[in-house]
Amino acid sequence: MAVAEFTPSSSSSIIKKTSLYSSQLFYVSTHQKRRFSLRPLQKTHYANICCSVTSNEVQAPVVTNDLKKKPECFGVFCLTYDLKAEEETSCWKKLINVSVSGAAGMIANHLLFKLAAGEVFGPDQPIALKLLGSERSIQALEGVAMELEDSLYPLLREVSIGIDPYEVFQDAEWALLIGAKPRGPGMERADLLDINGQIFAEQGKALNAVASRNVKVIVVGNPCNTNALICLKNAPDISAKNFHALTRLDENRAKCQLALKAGVFYDKVSNMTIWGNHSTTQVPDFLNAKINGFPVKEVIRDTKWLEEEFTEKVQKRGGVLIQKWGRSSAASTAVSVVDAIRSLVTPTPEGDWFSTGVYTDGNPYGIAEGIVFSMPCRSNGDGDYELVKDVIIDDYLRSRIKKSEDELLAEKRCVAHRTGEGIAVCDLPGDTMLPGEM
Amino acid sequence: MAVAEFTPSSSSSIIKKTSLYSSQLFYVSTHQKRRFSLRPLQKTHYANICCSVTSNEVQAPVVTNDLKKKPECFGVFCLTYDLKAEEETSCWKKLINVSVSGAAGMIANHLLFKLAAGEVFGPDQPIALKLLGSERSIQALEGVAMELEDSLYPLLREVSIGIDPYEVFQDAEWALLIGAKPRGPGMERADLLDINGQIFAEQGKALNAVASRNVKVIVVGNPCNTNALICLKNAPDISAKNFHALTRLDENRAKCQLALKAGVFYDKVSNMTIWGNHSTTQVPDFLNAKINGFPVKEVIRDTKWLEEEFTEKVQKRGGVLIQKWGRSSAASTAVSVVDAIRSLVTPTPEGDWFSTGVYTDGNPYGIAEGIVFSMPCRSNGDGDYELVKDVIIDDYLRSRIKKSEDELLAEKRCVAHRTGEGIAVCDLPGDTMLPGEM
Repeated sequence: MAVAEFTPSSSSSIIKKTSLYSSQLFYVSTHQKRRFSLRPLQKTHYANICCSVTSNEVQAPVVTNDLKKKPECFGVFCLTYDLKAEEETSCWKKLINVSVSGAAGMIANHLLFKLAAGEVFGPDQPIALKLLGSERSIQALEGVAMELEDSLYPLLREVSIGIDPYEVFQDAEWALLIGAKPRGPGMERADLLDINGQIFAEQGKALNAVASRNVKVIVVGNPCNTNALICLKNAPDISAKNFHALTRLDENRAKCQLALKAGVFYDKVSNMTIWGNHSTTQVPDFLNAKINGFPVKEVIRDTKWLEEEFTEKVQKRGGVLIQKWGRSSAASTAVSVVDAIRSLVTPTPEGDWFSTGVYTDGNPYGIAEGIVFSMPCRSNGDGDYELVKDVIIDDYLRSRIKKSEDELLAEKRCVAHRTGEGIAVCDLPGDTMLPGEM
Repeated sequence: MAVAEFTPSSSSSIIKKTSLYSSQLFYVSTHQKRRFSLRPLQKTHYANICCSVTSNEVQAPVVTNDLKKKPECFGVFCLTYDLKAEEETSCWKKLINVSVSGAAGMIANHLLFKLAAGEVFGPDQPIALKLLGSERSIQALEGVAMELEDSLYPLLREVSIGIDPYEVFQDAEWALLIGAKPRGPGMERADLLDINGQIFAEQGKALNAVASRNVKVIVVGNPCNTNALICLKNAPDISAKNFHALTRLDENRAKCQLALKAGVFYDKVSNMTIWGNHSTTQVPDFLNAKINGFPVKEVIRDTKWLEEEFTEKVQKRGGVLIQKWGRSSAASTAVSVVDAIRSLVTPTPEGDWFSTGVYTDGNPYGIAEGIVFSMPCRSNGDGDYELVKDVIIDDYLRSRIKKSEDELLAEKRCVAHRTGEGIAVCDLPGDTMLPGEM
């Protein structure tokens, strides 16, 4: 797929464009900037960003045998074996294929070893790891595969590495999409959306062509909600319900902050929802969350703290961590991916729920359809989920959810050329990247 | 403890010194260099290194209540709780204290999350993590503790951080000593031995003063065998049998290389011993190892490969990995620490064994007493071990073991001022640091 072509937009306060693919008109107002290319621009925080991008109709490739190439197996993992032939492994489940993008990065460096150790899928679930990297990182991928070899994990039966998603996603039952372009100096969220949109459109097409029809996809790479949307739109043969954007680290952090404030251990906090986008518009929901089974508001009677400080504490956590530790929170992000998968493969405890960014079609909360939005979910452990119906939404919560919804709708318009929905028009409300994230 | 004071040695080919603490004479020959200080010297590979150091009698401090200070608890982990009061946790075992030094480093960053997840001690063993760092890394330690908070591990009940081993080792039942000074540019192994010897002497004294009387100590920081020796010599009230030097990564790598050569999966390789020092004199033992229950030599009939390439492949692994991945093998090192602990807390499978560097007193192999040497061990899962008796040692293996033994005896002479055994005299056989290690 070609790099996005930005067409110069007018510098007047209104642009009016007719899409080549639709007859709709877009009116976008205020503070426009000329946008010509993806090259780093001077950083302008909190300015509205407007751009228009030529459309690129989504067309998933036809699956042919040519596309069904195997990625390159690595070292000791190239050996053939028969798990059912051995006494110790004969009762194990059937091998599952787990594809991981950004596999040479730090989050994956934690996650892969958790997957291989059985922390995620359990002690009787053998796995194959298929690692996707870039041309630049292929040597590093070999290093990762070598460390996996040296770890002698009994459950880890196959490791393959590659740079072509059409190979690496072959028969994937789980696709953990961590890899994304980090934001370069001066890069706006619109640039980031586009440059990553290109990657996730490509990966969506590849999943559509070669992955298991029941593949579950968890998008970690930012901006993850809209990346997940692009991915699912480019994979029309896979149920949109199978795509997730990771908001579990936010949920975990929110639980921890409530526990700290209430003076209880974190296992006493339940029913924590993160609503919306994995950005500063996200809404950690203290209305429905519970502490020791009681509504948070009955336990923490400091409304000012809940309304003004709590969300900020959750969101600033990543930034504080970078200051302290000098690196981004790779370990706890990997833990939250483990949690996200386990929430789908084990039954949700009675009365509780978890948060994950999922497709909004058919949601009972009145949130706009056609976006990927973090909402409260339950699972019976089969990999699928259902949205929780009995949540309270008051005016305050509604207004905050609306803000994140508006942002995701704006992001969606900004990547229309990646989702096959016409010409992209960006009018993003400034910089909503979470501190400490790339 | 003061920094080692090197006294200038003679530049003639023989030094003759009378110890202040013994009447023994030391004769050390060939290629001596003047050694005055710990400042980086010009790097001289493969030259013999000679030095003498004034002695420093080992005296463990008396345990007083003053020394029994608690390290600083962190965040949500400062809360009090009663595990037995809750239905879900009432059947759990008693909390254990695990102290980890070098806790802000990359190996610990993998290991701590494995410990907290229950990968090491099991799903019903709650743990307290006590993190030891340096003044320079205290902020990073806070970052690590924050990520542990955000991970919401149910088994992790206490986290404390500190820079004083007398606080952090308080009641430790496991002490995982990862922190060590890396070798600076131009630094010789003798310098490294001394600078780390100082750290491990201090930590041994602290363990002796405040740790559980049954503490198990695993030394990961290099040069780990001699660091472990120094540590145990400074902890006279703790059984020398409780101290280990980590050679498990070498064992794991050796198993993987044999598997690769034989074309079998790595779980088919057993009875793998690493003999000796965690250095290039170490001996991965292909005489006693088995593949599918058969002696390696019956399966791999390529004696030239076994004698000439196998050991090199095991030892160069770390260096190759740094080249590929750009960092040292933190993840697989952490996995090998997990393996080392699990080998002590779970019964060794029938007929198999594992390698760990332990004190040689009473060993049945004819290895000199009074050093820490990697040997084959079995455990019944109570944290203790016994040396395996029925191993074959032929002349070839004996001669290689001898070389590592000689090296460790030389290292011991080089740190005599740290172990309370008189004046240090260094005549180390050149640079035997494993590639890719610090």
